[in-house]
Amino acid sequence: MADTGHADLMDFSSDTSAPAHPAVLEAMAHVNSGNQSSYGNDEITAILRPELARVLETDDFDFWLCASGTAANALVLSCFCPPMGAILCHAEAHIARDERSAPEFFTGGGKLQLLEGNGAQIDEAALRAALARIDHDFVHETPAHVLSLTNLTESGTAYPAERIRHYASLARDAGLSVHLDGARLANAVASTGATVAEMTWKAGMDAVCLGLTKTGAIGCEIIVLFGDARSKFPELKARAKRSGHMPPKMRYMAAQALALFKDDLWLTLAGTANQRARQVSNMLCRDPETTLVNPVEGNEIFVRLGDETLKALRRAKATFYPWLDDSYRLVTSWATPADTVSQLAQALD
Amino acid sequence: MADTGHADLMDFSSDTSAPAHPAVLEAMAHVNSGNQSSYGNDEITAILRPELARVLETDDFDFWLCASGTAANALVLSCFCPPMGAILCHAEAHIARDERSAPEFFTGGGKLQLLEGNGAQIDEAALRAALARIDHDFVHETPAHVLSLTNLTESGTAYPAERIRHYASLARDAGLSVHLDGARLANAVASTGATVAEMTWKAGMDAVCLGLTKTGAIGCEIIVLFGDARSKFPELKARAKRSGHMPPKMRYMAAQALALFKDDLWLTLAGTANQRARQVSNMLCRDPETTLVNPVEGNEIFVRLGDETLKALRRAKATFYPWLDDSYRLVTSWATPADTVSQLAQALD
Amino acid sequence: MADTGHADLMDFSSDTSAPAHPAVLEAMAHVNSGNQSSYGNDEITAILRPELARVLETDDFDFWLCASGTAANALVLSCFCPPMGAILCHAEAHIARDERSAPEFFTGGGKLQLLEGNGAQIDEAALRAALARIDHDFVHETPAHVLSLTNLTESGTAYPAERIRHYASLARDAGLSVHLDGARLANAVASTGATVAEMTWKAGMDAVCLGLTKTGAIGCEIIVLFGDARSKFPELKARAKRSGHMPPKMRYMAAQALALFKDDLWLTLAGTANQRARQVSNMLCRDPETTLVNPVEGNEIFVRLGDETLKALRRAKATFYPWLDDSYRLVTSWATPADTVSQLAQALD
Amino acid sequence: MADTGHADLMDFSSDTSAPAHPAVLEAMAHVNSGNQSSYGNDEITAILRPELARVLETDDFDFWLCASGTAANALVLSCFCPPMGAILCHAEAHIARDERSAPEFFTGGGKLQLLEGNGAQIDEAALRAALARIDHDFVHETPAHVLSLTNLTESGTAYPAERIRHYASLARDAGLSVHLDGARLANAVASTGATVAEMTWKAGMDAVCLGLTKTGAIGCEIIVLFGDARSKFPELKARAKRSGHMPPKMRYMAAQALALFKDDLWLTLAGTANQRARQVSNMLCRDPETTLVNPVEGNEIFVRLGDETLKALRRAKATFYPWLDDSYRLVTSWATPADTVSQLAQALD
Repeated sequence: MADTGHADLMDFSSDTSAPAHPAVLEAMAHVNSGNQSSYGNDEITAILRPELARVLETDDFDFWLCASGTAANALVLSCFCPPMGAILCHAEAHIARDERSAPEFFTGGGKLQLLEGNGAQIDEAALRAALARIDHDFVHETPAHVLSLTNLTESGTAYPAERIRHYASLARDAGLSVHLDGARLANAVASTGATVAEMTWKAGMDAVCLGLTKTGAIGCEIIVLFGDARSKFPELKARAKRSGHMPPKMRYMAAQALALFKDDLWLTLAGTANQRARQVSNMLCRDPETTLVNPVEGNEIFVRLGDETLKALRRAKATFYPWLDDSYRLVTSWATPADTVSQLAQALD
Repeated sequence: MADTGHADLMDFSSDTSAPAHPAVLEAMAHVNSGNQSSYGNDEITAILRPELARVLETDDFDFWLCASGTAANALVLSCFCPPMGAILCHAEAHIARDERSAPEFFTGGGKLQLLEGNGAQIDEAALRAALARIDHDFVHETPAHVLSLTNLTESGTAYPAERIRHYASLARDAGLSVHLDGARLANAVASTGATVAEMTWKAGMDAVCLGLTKTGAIGCEIIVLFGDARSKFPELKARAKRSGHMPPKMRYMAAQALALFKDDLWLTLAGTANQRARQVSNMLCRDPETTLVNPVEGNEIFVRLGDETLKALRRAKATFYPWLDDSYRLVTSWATPADTVSQLAQALD
Repeated sequence: MADTGHADLMDFSSDTSAPAHPAVLEAMAHVNSGNQSSYGNDEITAILRPELARVLETDDFDFWLCASGTAANALVLSCFCPPMGAILCHAEAHIARDERSAPEFFTGGGKLQLLEGNGAQIDEAALRAALARIDHDFVHETPAHVLSLTNLTESGTAYPAERIRHYASLARDAGLSVHLDGARLANAVASTGATVAEMTWKAGMDAVCLGLTKTGAIGCEIIVLFGDARSKFPELKARAKRSGHMPPKMRYMAAQALALFKDDLWLTLAGTANQRARQVSNMLCRDPETTLVNPVEGNEIFVRLGDETLKALRRAKATFYPWLDDSYRLVTSWATPADTVSQLAQALD
Repeated sequence: MADTGHADLMDFSSDTSAPAHPAVLEAMAHVNSGNQSSYGNDEITAILRPELARVLETDDFDFWLCASGTAANALVLSCFCPPMGAILCHAEAHIARDERSAPEFFTGGGKLQLLEGNGAQIDEAALRAALARIDHDFVHETPAHVLSLTNLTESGTAYPAERIRHYASLARDAGLSVHLDGARLANAVASTGATVAEMTWKAGMDAVCLGLTKTGAIGCEIIVLFGDARSKFPELKARAKRSGHMPPKMRYMAAQALALFKDDLWLTLAGTANQRARQVSNMLCRDPETTLVNPVEGNEIFVRLGDETLKALRRAKATFYPWLDDSYRLVTSWATPADTVSQLAQALD
């Protein structure tokens, strides 16, 4: 089976290729004795609640655990967007590009309305124009009910907390709910220095999908509903049930979250991943023909590679994906070894 | 946290309350190093294939892993039943009663057509009548496209292999596909002595949801498509993706299956659960006022309890659910200790 | 083309085989000049409102016009039953048997929960049991949100107003909304002597699909929302739009309704249809081997025919459909000529 | 009620505000006697078939009648695009902008992929790029299954037959089906001089929604499946049934089509509408500050109006809608009187 040999050192394909952090496995083994009530009524999930309250700096929330980020997003969106409504999101958003129309499926035929903007961050003018156009009395068009933001964005940039808060405020004034796809929220938090609270409920989010899978879990995403949005919790559970996202043995998912929240391990791991991305990016940019497509504000690098650099990476058997317009994406993770950087330096010399 | 104290000894609430078998956790830890391709393209999932071929005694299959039995069933059914079609199943089937209309959701509005029969086994006459009524040219009614069978049934009885094969044959002659909900297939196999192959493809199944969660996994169900039904595999994957059932780190699910298939551990565990159920059932039936609603052919007991027995169980703080018509359901699992039986004897004395 | 020759005299296939009443065509021609706003904002639809208020004896309603009874039912049901909810209805209801899973489609995967009862009228005990079972906190089962009644029923019987009111009251006490499929409401009103109001809002209906197509229109069903249910009107219109049930030239549909409501023509026509059914039924029952399956309380006859009678009908080239359990269904309409009765008498002699 | 007074002369709001052509009402009255089989099995619908074959210059087709253009499009699209697929269309297409996510609803959560291009005609490079990107093996993205074209386009321009054919050819080579939204096909045919056949099956269309409502009917759209696409006909009917688009008394819809096809009346009427649009457009453009946004190639004018012209139209109580970017839309119809032109001339002087 896999070891931590050469291939791994040079694997920049995705942060989902990484293993889980050992603490995650240990925590799962630790709860593996005795019976526990099914479907989230177990003692471990109960223990997670106060721990999550600490992380979020509030007790005014409900939460649900889910192994899939796609499902987490689609479940939340279907609670806030009716079948005859629309969801505003960036044209490059994961929900728009990489989830095989999961939002359309879960909402029963709702629509995504795509907005442009640099670095996969929605342009403010585009947002304002979309909000201004909403007319619930004009039955022919599909009015927006939700604004969905992604942080870290799909282009590896981090929305600052103020911008998130400003956008959420515009959306709420227009009667929309606000959702955050936080599959890489830890990376955005580690990168900007904002707190989780500042990035979520303090910024006016109704619902957040807080991802741990890419940060070191096996499969654990936390759907959080804040404040008034908690009224949607029974609906969320019913939708989770009928879509197969109500794990009978939820204790093992709760254990993953507990392990990663302990001593803020998840943020430490995200910090490591971000650091590796900066190091790799700096290395790549030594080639004057290499240019970054977006600033590296998390654990993802979007880059146009100079010919020599590209050849050197290929020679070193580095793995990474081609992206839009002849650019490439390289992703680091909590597990990217420090040796990767030195080895990369060698390869590029 | 939970220990293996008194409560567990007397917990007959569900086999999903049990922990995972230690071998499952060990296997997950074992694969937790190095990078692996995401979304099922990892080496551990690749290793599972030949092992599954051994279990199934055929190589003519495709498979997918999924943490949820509800999702496994609904995904398969949506590949075989169009939105304007129907699924034949028993009125007590899990897909009809306990999955919050997941099949209707995944099929896009397909319909379940409920059939009666003792012990949650479909009555042959009811099946024949339903098949005879299918008329694809009569546009007003919703014609059946799939027969869904459950083994072990929802009433704890086991269809014998011949009966499954006979029903599948009737259904296929009428142009239907055949699906097996095998959330407790191991219990049926252990109980009847039939092989997995005899219970599935040799019996004419197109698709089987082979459950491991209730048998000792954390969360692992295997969707298997046989023979001609393999043509549905790309559709199955696309549907899995958009419903959030394409785990990025699938290696950990594959590891669970590998652990349970090794030396046929899953069947051994199911055998233990079945044995405990028989022992418990025998104990309960010492009370002449206690009568079984259905024969105990797996790890579930459906029973009308005599007053004294009911009181004794309550005193002993046994946990179990009330069922239909004043009956009760008691479920054992691989983890039900042998001590449970002696302690129960004591409680009932 | 068709004339009113022999075949028509003996056509008992359906009331939808009948032509429209001449007044309907005249009314449509009458509004066929000048421009009118589209999508229901025309002057003719505006005129319909007070006329409908007169028919309904209330002004506390909103309404929508729709050419299809299937659509009218499904649209209403999808406003009151969420995707993870269920609809209680009789096992023989049109929405269950004859609409190709339209309710499942429009609700986004909601479920019909079928209840038994003689003459296609729900048995009170079955209704009470179903209501008692609703538990919104038990996430696994699909709780009922709507009771759907049909009057005239699918077996040609008429619920009396008191029974409707009683059932609606039971349902509302359990938190359900109440829907009436009134595709043949005129026949039930004409048969029982109750008023339209007594059969609908006075009986506690939230929403009624008042059918005119089978009573003499070309295609016109009126969806009516009463009282608090009027809050669903914007949703109803949005759902109508996206399902193609927002006719751009609605004036022609409104004209049909106006023609049929004028001088209560619709009730007169239903009375004629009912009378023909009684006459035909009496004629058939002269044969001692002929027995009615249900009492004839509208324009439909469900009957087991004696051999001689069956042969005589076949000889006379009468058209009618075989029904359940070797019975037959014969339907009369407003257009069934008086001569039909005498000709039938001759044929059966 | 409405007459043909001043308001109508100056009504440029929509071609759906117009009445039906008198021949349509006459034809409906003509078939209003005697019984006819329901649901499309009547003699009038049977007569329509050869007449449609004449119009289409082929016998290799199946057809269905539907009162709604939204429904016609969505029904067809749902036969060709699975829930996990996408539909390519122009960003301004009616299916994208004006049908309240009907395609997403009917397909069960399929996606529209929007393409740009001048005059609401898809840009060839955009089409080629979208086709090149389709990868059915890449499960995360939603691959296109259908190309949907609109002619007359939503901007009032007419695709020439060769361009339609070229685009259809590109799409078919990439494995897509091709759909034409022909709500105003008559206007495009009348404008370009191409035949209906050249605009549809000879151009490689699999399915066409041929609209008559905007051309003079009350409500009649014809869904046509050509060649191999005829295999979808049973599915189309089942979908029509469950969405409420299987009119019980279809004879009245067939009569509308027969009236409009007779002596090619529909094309004559479209020609009149087109001529009025050109006349009105010429009149408006006398103002040097008035500029056309798109060439007038049908019965719609998209225009930026000079201040004086705008004031004069307002004074004359002309009705028309504001459109994108400070432009306006004016629509003529078969019923726009010749006097409108002279009256407009007067108003603008």
